[in-house]
Amino acid sequence: MPMQNLKIAIQGIEGSNHHKVIRDYFEAETQIKACATFREVVYALVNNQVEASLMAIENSIAGSILPNYRLLIDANLQITQEFYLNISHNLVALPNQSLNDITQVKSHQMALHQCGNFFSKHPHIKLIEDVDTALPAKLIAKNQQKNLAALVPNGTAELFGLEVIQPNVQDTNTNETRFVLLKKPTQTENQDANKATLHFELKHEQGNLANLLTTMSELGMNLTKIQSIPIAHKQWNYAFIVDVRFKHIRDYKKLIRVLNASTEVIQTLGLYKSGRT
Amino acid sequence: MPMQNLKIAIQGIEGSNHHKVIRDYFEAETQIKACATFREVVYALVNNQVEASLMAIENSIAGSILPNYRLLIDANLQITQEFYLNISHNLVALPNQSLNDITQVKSHQMALHQCGNFFSKHPHIKLIEDVDTALPAKLIAKNQQKNLAALVPNGTAELFGLEVIQPNVQDTNTNETRFVLLKKPTQTENQDANKATLHFELKHEQGNLANLLTTMSELGMNLTKIQSIPIAHKQWNYAFIVDVRFKHIRDYKKLIRVLNASTEVIQTLGLYKSGRT
Repeated sequence: MPMQNLKIAIQGIEGSNHHKVIRDYFEAETQIKACATFREVVYALVNNQVEASLMAIENSIAGSILPNYRLLIDANLQITQEFYLNISHNLVALPNQSLNDITQVKSHQMALHQCGNFFSKHPHIKLIEDVDTALPAKLIAKNQQKNLAALVPNGTAELFGLEVIQPNVQDTNTNETRFVLLKKPTQTENQDANKATLHFELKHEQGNLANLLTTMSELGMNLTKIQSIPIAHKQWNYAFIVDVRFKHIRDYKKLIRVLNASTEVIQTLGLYKSGRT
Repeated sequence: MPMQNLKIAIQGIEGSNHHKVIRDYFEAETQIKACATFREVVYALVNNQVEASLMAIENSIAGSILPNYRLLIDANLQITQEFYLNISHNLVALPNQSLNDITQVKSHQMALHQCGNFFSKHPHIKLIEDVDTALPAKLIAKNQQKNLAALVPNGTAELFGLEVIQPNVQDTNTNETRFVLLKKPTQTENQDANKATLHFELKHEQGNLANLLTTMSELGMNLTKIQSIPIAHKQWNYAFIVDVRFKHIRDYKKLIRVLNASTEVIQTLGLYKSGRT
């Protein structure tokens, strides 16, 4: 499906995984606004500096990025699409070095974590956490820093004139990240939607969550995910975030009617077409 | 309860929130091993460099730190105690500066996030993510760097010769982090336990989770938390992590018997006394 030509806020610079989603799924003319933090990504949209924001929300190994759900809830934005990106971590450094020359690797905590097996086998490499994946690669090139490596997706080494020392150092090849495209809420309902992300607080009665899941199951819905998330103003009380798949939007509407009756707060964070067939 | 004199791995340096838990709850003679990453905290224990590890697992605003559950599951360690620390973020910098002099603040993503309201009101301050909270404070002191601030808990400014520019800049005063003490598994069962953290994979039948929650409710148990977490080797299949409170350990044993029958994999991540009364 061709995408309209938007200006989109992303986390990270050119060469980051967010940027790879733009390269893979959006038109070549798409403009990006590179943001240092997920908070900036969200508030660039809130403050109308962009028409949409792209944000990683979940990884198939590390799980949900809960702080990003918090941002999404608080900013009252809507998930309008989702994209799955296969994550490959290539160990990259200045040209003409071998793995033995590398003494340090600088990357994001999640990237380092996803390559745990590889680094366990190469204990001479010291792991240094950074807040970004592509930025350490860019700085290695800029400062011509030897013995230091970064972990970047396919296509990024070339962007900075670096060399791939070892491709695909991730623990498993089934490592995908799910990204969501955020927009401001509109009145229009996506009639093709077959997935929803919901956020709700339950009335405090024992067994309430069990009853709700039973209802979903009776409606033939597939609960693909559930997270409890704290309620900021009620310490150690939890709200829930669920992803549900359904066949037709009328089933979603039935569920919303049930939720309206059994929950304190109900907020649809997105009604969209699944990125999976 | 006085703690035995252990060597404990913590994330962060002296002055960090982990270190504050040690100062508040453990004996003065307790030795710490400061680790740069949570991964190091866990593997210091796995590799017998320490007798226990202290790890943040959840915050009352930001929610669960899911990657830390992943580490805990993979390393096969046990939660033996939990501690709640009230989180105060003091904005600290070199002495004799006012808020107007501060142009940048460097801290961990979660700390910056928890002070979002304050920084929205002071847009002249640029937020820079770091992998640590106490380390930027230490470096400000070491490099005598003006115009730069850090966010640290009570008692840390004094440690580094910095001054509190503005105390308690967090959004809400009900901001607590839950820390868990990890040890290697033993055969001994804590008979005072009234809380368990469980990890299980459900057999894939619609409505299974609903049935399980109904069982917990019938056993009079209080489900305090539920998280779905990916199964690393089965892409986009989910396991669940739950915290349950119970009155007597025999109820926990009943639940385990039910889980043994209805789950594929069941792992007790901890059986311990709640840090709450």
